[in-house]
Order: sequence, then C-alpha cells, then structure tokens
Amino acid sequence: MIYLDYVATTPLNPQVYETYTKLLKDKFANADSMYDLGLEVELLMEKSRLLTAKMLGVEKDELIFTSGASEANNMAIKGTALQYWHRGKHVITSCIEHSSVYESFKELERVFGFEVTYLPVDQHGLIHLEDLKQALKEETILVSLMYVNNEVGTVFPIEEVKKIIKQYPKIKLHVDMVQALGKIPISLEDVDLASFSAHKIEGLKGSGLLYKKRNCQLVPLISGGQQEQGLRGGTSNACTNIVFAKTLRLALENFEMKQQHVKTFYLYLKDLIQQNITCATINTPDHDLSYHIMNVSLVGYKPEVIVHDLEKKGIYISTRSACSSKQNEVSRVLKMMHLSEEVASSAIRISLSSLTTKEEIEIFVRELQDSLTNLKKKRTT
Amino acid sequence: MIYLDYVATTPLNPQVYETYTKLLKDKFANADSMYDLGLEVELLMEKSRLLTAKMLGVEKDELIFTSGASEANNMAIKGTALQYWHRGKHVITSCIEHSSVYESFKELERVFGFEVTYLPVDQHGLIHLEDLKQALKEETILVSLMYVNNEVGTVFPIEEVKKIIKQYPKIKLHVDMVQALGKIPISLEDVDLASFSAHKIEGLKGSGLLYKKRNCQLVPLISGGQQEQGLRGGTSNACTNIVFAKTLRLALENFEMKQQHVKTFYLYLKDLIQQNITCATINTPDHDLSYHIMNVSLVGYKPEVIVHDLEKKGIYISTRSACSSKQNEVSRVLKMMHLSEEVASSAIRISLSSLTTKEEIEIFVRELQDSLTNLKKKRTT
Repeated sequence: MIYLDYVATTPLNPQVYETYTKLLKDKFANADSMYDLGLEVELLMEKSRLLTAKMLGVEKDELIFTSGASEANNMAIKGTALQYWHRGKHVITSCIEHSSVYESFKELERVFGFEVTYLPVDQHGLIHLEDLKQALKEETILVSLMYVNNEVGTVFPIEEVKKIIKQYPKIKLHVDMVQALGKIPISLEDVDLASFSAHKIEGLKGSGLLYKKRNCQLVPLISGGQQEQGLRGGTSNACTNIVFAKTLRLALENFEMKQQHVKTFYLYLKDLIQQNITCATINTPDHDLSYHIMNVSLVGYKPEVIVHDLEKKGIYISTRSACSSKQNEVSRVLKMMHLSEEVASSAIRISLSSLTTKEEIEIFVRELQDSLTNLKKKRTT
Repeated sequence: MIYLDYVATTPLNPQVYETYTKLLKDKFANADSMYDLGLEVELLMEKSRLLTAKMLGVEKDELIFTSGASEANNMAIKGTALQYWHRGKHVITSCIEHSSVYESFKELERVFGFEVTYLPVDQHGLIHLEDLKQALKEETILVSLMYVNNEVGTVFPIEEVKKIIKQYPKIKLHVDMVQALGKIPISLEDVDLASFSAHKIEGLKGSGLLYKKRNCQLVPLISGGQQEQGLRGGTSNACTNIVFAKTLRLALENFEMKQQHVKTFYLYLKDLIQQNITCATINTPDHDLSYHIMNVSLVGYKPEVIVHDLEKKGIYISTRSACSSKQNEVSRVLKMMHLSEEVASSAIRISLSSLTTKEEIEIFVRELQDSLTNLKKKRTT
C-alpha cells in the first residue's frame, strides 16, 4: 500500500496505540470520581495537559480537550461570537476555510444574524492583508483564519495577521492550526484561540484540543459538568486525552528533520510530475506552502476516476477534503482561487508525511502516468 | 475491589475491548475517503448504526453518533430550541436533570432569552403530570425530561408524558435516556429526541448517540462536513462508532435476567442497610425506581469522609453525579426533593450492575457499618 492521503487522516502511531490500549484496559474510572481510582485517571490526564501546554508554549489551564478539531473550531467561533455579540455582530473569516469553520460562520449568519466578511483569496489561495485591514470595523469581534489550507497546502500569513489584530484589543483571533501542527513551526503568541486535531498527527480520532487564552471568555458549546473548567461538559474521554501529549511529542520529535524530509520529497514529486505528466497543472503555489500537500489538476480527467484507478493498485490519494468528498460540485476552495472550471474540476490532492519514501513517490508517479494513459485509451476506443 | 459506582461509569466489556483494539490497529482510514479503505470503514460504521437502530426499534437515519451523551443532550436541546425559536421561546424541563441538560437550559435562558419552566419534584424525586400540563402553553416548543435520575434512581413517568405531549404536535419531546438504557425497558415511540451513552453500559468513553425522529429538524451543534447527515461535522470516530452496536447488544443480552439480578440485589442491599445501619435514610423511593441506584443519607456523617474511608478498603461508591463531584454545596437534586439539610448533606450513592455479587453487597454493608463506627469513635475521642 502506498498511502498519500495523510491530510485526510494518518495511521495511528504504534507507540500511541500501545499506551492507549494499555490505559483502556486499566483505567476505566471516571476522572471526576473523588476516590483514588478516579484521581489517578485525572492526574494522568492533567499531566498530559501540562506536557502538551509546555510543548505549545502556553499554560495548562489554556487547553481544553475536545472530541476533535471540528468541535474545537465550532467552540471557538460560536463560543466567542455568542460571548461577545453585545459588543458587535461582525465577524471575519476567509472563503477557503475548512467546512467546520465555514459552516460555523454560515450558522452565525443564518441563525444568529451576524454579518460575516469572507476574505477573498488570490490564485495561490492566499488572502491579502489589505483586504483584512479594510474589513475590520467597530463592530468586529472575531477573526478566524486557518494556518495551512487543507486542500492546497497554502500557508496564510498568520504572523502578519497577528500584528494587525493586536492593534484591536477587542477583536479575538482564532487560528485553525489543524494542518499546521507538526508540519510548520507555530507560535500561539498573540493568538486568542487555536484548534488542533490528534488524528492528523498519527493520533486517535475523536481527539482534539482547543487553546483559549486566559482572558478570552466563551459560551460553552457542550454545556454541562465541571469538566474542562466548566467549558466542555461530559465524562472525560480520559484515556484518549492522556495519550494526546505522547502523540504530540512523537509528532514534534526531530521536527526539522521531518520537515526537511517532507520538503525534499515534495520537490522530488513536483519534479517528477512536471517531467512526466504533461497534462498536470500544480495548483499549490511555489511560495507560502507547507510542503505536505500538493494539489494538482489533471486537465481532461475526472479526478474520481483517477483515484479509483490508483486505488486498484493500492495507491491512495484524494480529490479534496474528506469532509466534503461526497459533494458533486467543484471544490469550494479551488473555485475561490479563480481557477478555470476545467482546472478546478480535475484536481487531485496528494499529501506526504515523514513516513513517505522516495520509492513510494516514484511508484506513484509511474502508476499515475500509467493510469492516465489507460484512461485516455479507454476513452478513445 | 468492590465497585459500586456503575452509574458514574462502568468497566469496559472485554469483548468490546477486543473488537475495538483490533479495529483500531487495522482500520485507520477516514470513513469519508472515497477509496476502498475508507469505504470499508464507512460500511462497518453504517452496519453498526443499522444494528443499533434495529435494537432501538428505529430507523438507521434517525441515529447520530456523538462524542457522548452530554453532546447528545446539548445537541437535542439547543439544536431544536434554535431551530424552532421563531415558533415560540418557551421550553420545559425538570429541576433535577443531569448537568448537561440543566446547563443547556440555563444557556438558553441566559444567552438566547428563552423562558424556561423547571418542573418541581416531590420528596421522591418525581414530577407531577399536572405541573407539566399546566406549564404547557402556546409558545412551548420543547419538553426535555430524563428517564431515570442519575442520583436517586427515580423513574419519571415518561409513557404518561408522551401521551400528554402527543396532543401538541408542535412541541418536541426530548428524553435523556442515559441511565435508562440497559436498565429498564425503553421505547422511542412518540419521542422526538433521545440521548444515550456507551460508557454507562460497559462501552467506550467519548461515545454517545442521539436519536432524532425524521420529521424533527435541528441546528447543528458541531457544524461542518457531510458526516452524520450534515448534522454533526468532524472526521468520524469510526472505530468507536463501530463498536457501539456490539456494546448495546451485550448490554441488552439477557436483559430480563440482568434486570432481575439487579433488583434482587438492590432489595437485599436495602434490607441489610435497614437492619444494620441505624442512621440510614434511604432517599430512593420504593416505587418508580430503576433498582440500579440507591441514594442513602447517613445522617451525622460527611459523605466524602465515608467515601474515602471505604476507598481505603477497596470499596468504591460516590456522593453524587461525578460531573458535579467538585461542588461543595448540597446536591441540586436532593435539595429539590425537599429533603432536610441534614439528610441532603449526608447522602451517598450506591449503584449496582449485573456484575454485582451477593458477597460484594454483604462486604460493603459490613465495611460501611465498620467505617461508621470508627468515624464516630474518632469524633468522640
């Protein structure tokens, strides 16, 4: 199997698996139970929170365990919007966010009457800071932008965004860091809220994290018990939360080496594609990219057909975000990048990780070439 | 170890553990990925949904997997309230609901300006149908009541409630069935929404289910991708969802025998307590009870002290809901039951399951008696 869809999800790290399944056997007590069995579970979970906080350079009480990044994104966006709506009902995001962010803003518009500015992007999938500056107004209470786009791999200028938003102390800045964590260096300085996912970094599904700066308040998404400082009710998914720290530590281990590995193979893949696949147009830009996602259009081909043909050979890639894989229209992200209909409708997404090998890249390109030739033949005969 | 806190959480069924850990190793693909690896995961998950639906007597597309019952409760309550608020902003619940229900209603009041009627309960922890009838009005859009109370084990007259609400087609009825599932027979007929949890029936933590009747709409709590009919975004926690059906099947296996087992030991425990613990007042009523929860006040003793003393002997009970174990005041549930301060402030909660043995009951009562004697001695010397 050649898996090149690491951005959809990743295999579980065997070390995480081992620790998790052991915990699951032994530590069943409710982390909120007041007796020793519960306390022991709670202590392990709080140790995980502390270690995670240290790795992210924040305080322990600024981290909230969630059931995933979609929950964290919803919690950050709806939670702050509803917390501060008396100050103003204008919020800003971009037009190429992940569906959990995009749909949260759609809900703020539709259900709660917010005014939303969706910042446009250029043909590289980049926002322009001038657009952001012009969108800010008296009533703006929240800006939510992703760090790395999950379909094209473009990196938004978050450090520049921070400098701008810092001048508006009443505006909260949320950054969806799901595709940035473990891929590019991140800093939570001057960020009010940030979302993370475990299963994108060889961790468990159903496991996410919300960073929330101390001075930032929010209306809980899941109201309930005392868990997570009263901001996220429900019996703690303790064993899952306990292995978050280990997942992150393993993901960040030898970070620069892994980053270089991915970059090297990205460039190698790009070279091979440009040399061998004549119909290919690479939509991921040459600058401001994470190097772990390559979006390529194979003009004249239906991407679903290519995905299924490669699948027969044990090669796995995708066409877009798995969260919207069943939509028939052209990807919203590519549409917003002003790509022509034929380019936007023929895109595949290849994603690499530090597990990717040179051989896998070579086989992939060879088989892709082979698939394209055969598919073309089929059509002409 | 003698574990008598099954209502807080349960040990994981070894059969569920085995299947789950095997799945976790093999099935890492994103259930929404369009290639075979993803499809295989999706099919297993949909099979689990179908089997679960059959066991609950509902349709497959009426079930939504969630990260737990707290999420399911929030989704049902806030989701329907915000969906139908144009029809009216009056909602009804009881004053002794689980914190995830209670706090959802508090949020509807505080953040969204709803009018909430909190139905009172009598000294048995029972609502009166007359109060419900009187509370219903033109603007009422939602009634949310629990089936079995998680602190005293009282069973609400849900079948009678259904008959009343059925006469108001515009009112949605949500039932928190967390403590009823696997304990008493349940029917989802004439219920619009119902919440369930896996970890209360020897399943995984971070695993819940929302039943939502087809004709009932709701505003998503976690907006996002296409998952769960577009009502609950986020990469499916597939392996967890796949074992839900097995968890439920095992919980419902030999249902009547298990129910009889729990009832027999409940009555035995009650007898032993009444015979041997002179200071005991049993707060759980003799009628309308689930038989798996016994709430007992040990007047003159601090319940935390008793819990910790028993813990030293490897016996685990609790004082109240784990979700609010860190609050210092008297339990809201007991306060609402009009118990005197000394009774309400000295309560312990013992909960049984079909795993409970006669010997465990006997040792528990003996050790409780011993603890009470020693604690009394300590105070007088």
